[in-house]
Amino acid sequence: MAGRNHLYVPGPTNVPNEILNAMHVAMEDHRSPVFPNLMKPLLQDLKLIFRTEAGQAFVFPATGTAGWEIALTNCLNPGDKVLIYRFGQFGHLWAELAKRLGFDVEIHQVEWGKGIPVDHLEARLKEDKSHEIKAFLATHNETATGVTSDIAGVRKAMDAASHPALLFVDGVSSIASIDFRMDEWDVDGAISGSQKGFMLPAGGAFVAFSQKAMKATETSSYSRGFFDLKDMANSNKDGYTPYTPSIPMLYGLRKALDLLLEEGLDNVYARHARLAEGTRKAVAAWGLKQCAHPGFESNTVTAVMVPADKDARHVISTAFSKYNISLGAGLSELAGKAFRIGHVGDMNDVSMLGAIAGVEMALLDNGFDIKAGSGVGAAVEYYRSTAK
Amino acid sequence: MAGRNHLYVPGPTNVPNEILNAMHVAMEDHRSPVFPNLMKPLLQDLKLIFRTEAGQAFVFPATGTAGWEIALTNCLNPGDKVLIYRFGQFGHLWAELAKRLGFDVEIHQVEWGKGIPVDHLEARLKEDKSHEIKAFLATHNETATGVTSDIAGVRKAMDAASHPALLFVDGVSSIASIDFRMDEWDVDGAISGSQKGFMLPAGGAFVAFSQKAMKATETSSYSRGFFDLKDMANSNKDGYTPYTPSIPMLYGLRKALDLLLEEGLDNVYARHARLAEGTRKAVAAWGLKQCAHPGFESNTVTAVMVPADKDARHVISTAFSKYNISLGAGLSELAGKAFRIGHVGDMNDVSMLGAIAGVEMALLDNGFDIKAGSGVGAAVEYYRSTAK
Amino acid sequence: MAGRNHLYVPGPTNVPNEILNAMHVAMEDHRSPVFPNLMKPLLQDLKLIFRTEAGQAFVFPATGTAGWEIALTNCLNPGDKVLIYRFGQFGHLWAELAKRLGFDVEIHQVEWGKGIPVDHLEARLKEDKSHEIKAFLATHNETATGVTSDIAGVRKAMDAASHPALLFVDGVSSIASIDFRMDEWDVDGAISGSQKGFMLPAGGAFVAFSQKAMKATETSSYSRGFFDLKDMANSNKDGYTPYTPSIPMLYGLRKALDLLLEEGLDNVYARHARLAEGTRKAVAAWGLKQCAHPGFESNTVTAVMVPADKDARHVISTAFSKYNISLGAGLSELAGKAFRIGHVGDMNDVSMLGAIAGVEMALLDNGFDIKAGSGVGAAVEYYRSTAK
Amino acid sequence: MAGRNHLYVPGPTNVPNEILNAMHVAMEDHRSPVFPNLMKPLLQDLKLIFRTEAGQAFVFPATGTAGWEIALTNCLNPGDKVLIYRFGQFGHLWAELAKRLGFDVEIHQVEWGKGIPVDHLEARLKEDKSHEIKAFLATHNETATGVTSDIAGVRKAMDAASHPALLFVDGVSSIASIDFRMDEWDVDGAISGSQKGFMLPAGGAFVAFSQKAMKATETSSYSRGFFDLKDMANSNKDGYTPYTPSIPMLYGLRKALDLLLEEGLDNVYARHARLAEGTRKAVAAWGLKQCAHPGFESNTVTAVMVPADKDARHVISTAFSKYNISLGAGLSELAGKAFRIGHVGDMNDVSMLGAIAGVEMALLDNGFDIKAGSGVGAAVEYYRSTAK
Repeated sequence: MAGRNHLYVPGPTNVPNEILNAMHVAMEDHRSPVFPNLMKPLLQDLKLIFRTEAGQAFVFPATGTAGWEIALTNCLNPGDKVLIYRFGQFGHLWAELAKRLGFDVEIHQVEWGKGIPVDHLEARLKEDKSHEIKAFLATHNETATGVTSDIAGVRKAMDAASHPALLFVDGVSSIASIDFRMDEWDVDGAISGSQKGFMLPAGGAFVAFSQKAMKATETSSYSRGFFDLKDMANSNKDGYTPYTPSIPMLYGLRKALDLLLEEGLDNVYARHARLAEGTRKAVAAWGLKQCAHPGFESNTVTAVMVPADKDARHVISTAFSKYNISLGAGLSELAGKAFRIGHVGDMNDVSMLGAIAGVEMALLDNGFDIKAGSGVGAAVEYYRSTAK
Repeated sequence: MAGRNHLYVPGPTNVPNEILNAMHVAMEDHRSPVFPNLMKPLLQDLKLIFRTEAGQAFVFPATGTAGWEIALTNCLNPGDKVLIYRFGQFGHLWAELAKRLGFDVEIHQVEWGKGIPVDHLEARLKEDKSHEIKAFLATHNETATGVTSDIAGVRKAMDAASHPALLFVDGVSSIASIDFRMDEWDVDGAISGSQKGFMLPAGGAFVAFSQKAMKATETSSYSRGFFDLKDMANSNKDGYTPYTPSIPMLYGLRKALDLLLEEGLDNVYARHARLAEGTRKAVAAWGLKQCAHPGFESNTVTAVMVPADKDARHVISTAFSKYNISLGAGLSELAGKAFRIGHVGDMNDVSMLGAIAGVEMALLDNGFDIKAGSGVGAAVEYYRSTAK
Repeated sequence: MAGRNHLYVPGPTNVPNEILNAMHVAMEDHRSPVFPNLMKPLLQDLKLIFRTEAGQAFVFPATGTAGWEIALTNCLNPGDKVLIYRFGQFGHLWAELAKRLGFDVEIHQVEWGKGIPVDHLEARLKEDKSHEIKAFLATHNETATGVTSDIAGVRKAMDAASHPALLFVDGVSSIASIDFRMDEWDVDGAISGSQKGFMLPAGGAFVAFSQKAMKATETSSYSRGFFDLKDMANSNKDGYTPYTPSIPMLYGLRKALDLLLEEGLDNVYARHARLAEGTRKAVAAWGLKQCAHPGFESNTVTAVMVPADKDARHVISTAFSKYNISLGAGLSELAGKAFRIGHVGDMNDVSMLGAIAGVEMALLDNGFDIKAGSGVGAAVEYYRSTAK
Repeated sequence: MAGRNHLYVPGPTNVPNEILNAMHVAMEDHRSPVFPNLMKPLLQDLKLIFRTEAGQAFVFPATGTAGWEIALTNCLNPGDKVLIYRFGQFGHLWAELAKRLGFDVEIHQVEWGKGIPVDHLEARLKEDKSHEIKAFLATHNETATGVTSDIAGVRKAMDAASHPALLFVDGVSSIASIDFRMDEWDVDGAISGSQKGFMLPAGGAFVAFSQKAMKATETSSYSRGFFDLKDMANSNKDGYTPYTPSIPMLYGLRKALDLLLEEGLDNVYARHARLAEGTRKAVAAWGLKQCAHPGFESNTVTAVMVPADKDARHVISTAFSKYNISLGAGLSELAGKAFRIGHVGDMNDVSMLGAIAGVEMALLDNGFDIKAGSGVGAAVEYYRSTAK
């Protein structure tokens, strides 16, 4: 198919050519005396993205899914109770992983489209007088529904309940694109991955842990191997790794950090907010609904609901096969009911207008009652009136 | 500026990542026994793009401008009369180059927006009973005005006049994107460059000559050095070059040929025709005029005229600085009066919709009386109704 | 430092430019309908490298170390007894990992420089009448000592003892460079990594399991998450993955497989054998000893012992800082006593001669009593007399 | 053939991966307002390599051969007399080009192996009382014979004769690797190319002209088109080019300049001198002779003579087909009599030792009476005793 693929899945995201070039490097001896010159500032600067000074950041050669496991198995003990709200496929998978790993997982169902109910959380934690709950697992941005939860509110609820549980946050699709403040919100384990806001290929689990979490690793009796945080911390101290690292991933991350820090994190967040709002204007102009309820809209991905008589899979399939545009599918409960437009990573206004126009074509082709140009027109108006 | 630059100038065009990768190669000995394994099929397959069997194709490490010079200085004698119609900046430059090179250049002015007047040409050639005109210089696609001339008609006119002049065609912005038939149209010198339909960086002058033109090189007394066709032909015969070639350009061309031939030239032409027509629908929906008169519209670039009270340079400048979208400027007589949208090379529907939406924003910002979404809507309708 | 770094550590190895280019790709939707067109043949062809038809091959976004864990935790039950011979740092680390993961690890010390004592193994397995030993962990190529063990002999010993233990083989630094035959040797778990013979960056754990091992996963009660083989197998069945894969790693592997299969595995093995033998000739000419005892010499890495009055670390440090050549350090018990020359991956005769000459300079600089040119001369004679 | 090709032709030279990456860029509008931010400092810094403050540097999308033509056709008038000494194939070609271009070329034959005879030059210029000689064409480094001429001596001779001829220097294989001082030596036209010391692919003619030469362009009546220096200078003034530039070449040059200036030109020269001297030690150890007579040895290429009963082409062919090492052939008069080892560009000690060892193998294979390791041993001793 001629011309490039237009990628708007919410991960993996488009990797800028500068980053791909940075990854196109000769291998090198990861035990050389100069290797720490790469590694040490990298881990230091990675902390800036997590917005932590007190915590420690790590790079594992794995994915965000592994990040979930790293947090659980290093800071908790087998059978520990953990609490999670389930309001999307990725929260669901995290809960399932925790169950499989032998934890006692208390799952509360929340309507898909909403995020963490902080009042309920506060009440539940207050109830837990004996502090049986050892960790609260919070999905900051649920990629499946396009829902962002209020982590500041989560912290407030935990504090209000004076509950000592560790706070683990899945920030795979938020960190480096949506406002995230590890220290300010007292997050104990922040989990991200390379393939979303970091604009890298998958293959990097980027995680950060508070001192409280690091302390917990010392008493954890969970059996760990590859994902042992203490081994990683020990090697990292001198700028090395416990096993062969992915050299391209490290150089790619170096470039990604440079790009993010050069733009400025607040500008990165603001850009994503604008890109998302323009997309939402288009969705509204089409007369379609988002999966996310008001107040929960994500700035990295918009899940668009289709009317009951339509199948979102057809929209995605038309977009892909006829127009070479890749959209995210509705997952699990949302299969066929929603399609998702990713607006995360290396994107700007014109990128999103291409996406929106492409979606319009696929909607029209599938008999949606919309006016050609309506969505794009709404986005055009929004972007141009808010651009600097 | 975050996000990628959206490039819609009519050259250099977007180079597909496959081609950039193909150019990312180790250097090699251009006198090795295996070098001809690259070179010989390359020159052979390049002929397929020119649609010539009888002619010979060449790659010079230079640009399309050099191609003009190669044709003139190898096939003509100093002071020879050449005929050209001037209806845009690139025809103008070719005529100027011919003058500087010491040829007797007969220039006929044609309104910018129109192409070669084949009836006038026929009359003029009939007049030239003594065959003083040694070559006719035809700009197939005038990139400055978005005008395509009728080369089949040119040949018909020449034949009707039974005129033996050589036919040199500037196909820099047509060959490999707009229908071009060297053998069928009896073109003697076809000149193209790497940076348009070939989807390569600039730095390659791709030219092809008929046997008649090759024969003319034997008697030409023009002083030549770097651009000597006989030297090139002699070295090429064995699969070598008279001086060090650009290894990346050769491997890049190899990949470009593979991509073009895989898509199929007729499909390439049809794709450009569709992309162009969608763009023209948008222009019409905005109520703006093209520079090209009906029947002359180019499928690789559209020059859009702005009303007298507007300056097209502001549109271009807004597009670039506010939206990171690069448009072509109006050149020379068209400076300030037109902007140009390139739709040539590695493009598809969604690429063009991004361009059109970006232009809409810049037009609105500059006070053009258009409706947001109108241009994109028209293109959306056209593209989706004609896509396979 | 001017000029390129000359990399002769036994991993990560030099990645050919073709592979780095293959990894320089746009991201794509890993849930698209065309993704299996990449994934399915990839896993199929990966089996060819393991030389298995009956088994199943997998790609995890992790490293060889993770491969050890994948084999243990998927096919065994917590507390199961496993048997291992420890004769180098990597065998040591595998044993340690198994202990940490809660297995009952029976470790037999073997002199570093020797490999698996197959007679002892047979005797030990015969002793284990009740079949308490559930798996035997065999380090095919011990990268730390440059020692290759006889896996065919291991299988013979196991068969002689009619012992049903699973046979797990660490082939990280052997598979794709040293003769390895999964089916013929009835290997149950073969573990490799991307960064040695596969000529890729680290970040890929390539593993293959026999049907017997796959069956064992069904009854394993070990808690697994990220490394769950059943999840991977389920997704792979349809050409997908349970979580976001590293797109560049997959395309890189595709290219690596193409290169390996084009050369032919037997030719790959023969090339490594020649490169290794030339290196050994040089070591002998210097009057130095290898760590590997006769019969155990590895074809991917040679560990060279230095006399008692010398420190191998100085050789490595001179080589690196003065000549930009990277050698492997002696690890653990061998620290300071040995340096290692990797001859694995994208190497040929001239590559090795550069390495050997570089080592000569570093040896002379450190007061070793050798003659300049002696090692290279020996290798020159060997290579030229055996080259085709 | 497995493993990489080892390239030791004296151009194109090995392009460092950083430069290839710098050339792997998206195209951009060469008429954009930010384009001069790239172009202006590039041309300014290029002057540093020519060691000129007073002169002006230019980048033409062509090759060094075109550089010869640019100097001749822009600064001279048709039929002007030029003087040249012919002592190698490239001087020969320059003289031939000048003849074809219609100049009156006075050629003096010099034994191949020697360089410009400055005493003879002084005498000849003194003879030319009427200053008929308008330019002296000096080949700084004759790539065919591995001979470097004394340009400071040339200037002294010209001054001693008080001769006003322009001094044009072919520095294609010297500039950026061998000491060259445009201002100090009053060079009027310095001609180089991208594919030698600049470590770029071919495709860039890098030239610099003195103010005297620039002044001469104003009165030159030679017919020029593509290579017109005034057009280029006019466009360059504002940071633009008269026709589409090769974007990758410009970014590649940017990186090359950064690398050269970071290393420091004097260090670059010293490195080449060391690399050359080591190569010469090896040649001497083999008992072979260089083409270059004492005092004329080049630091970028060594032409090695073979005994009368040997054919150098067989050495080159064995090296290439058996060992994947590319050597330069003897050209023209030297065909079969010499092979050439390039030591120019991105090279260091270990690179050269690989080359020398490779040549040893090819010599032995072809029955040369040399001792394996002798050449490498001599180079090892030299490099290690002179390395920092």
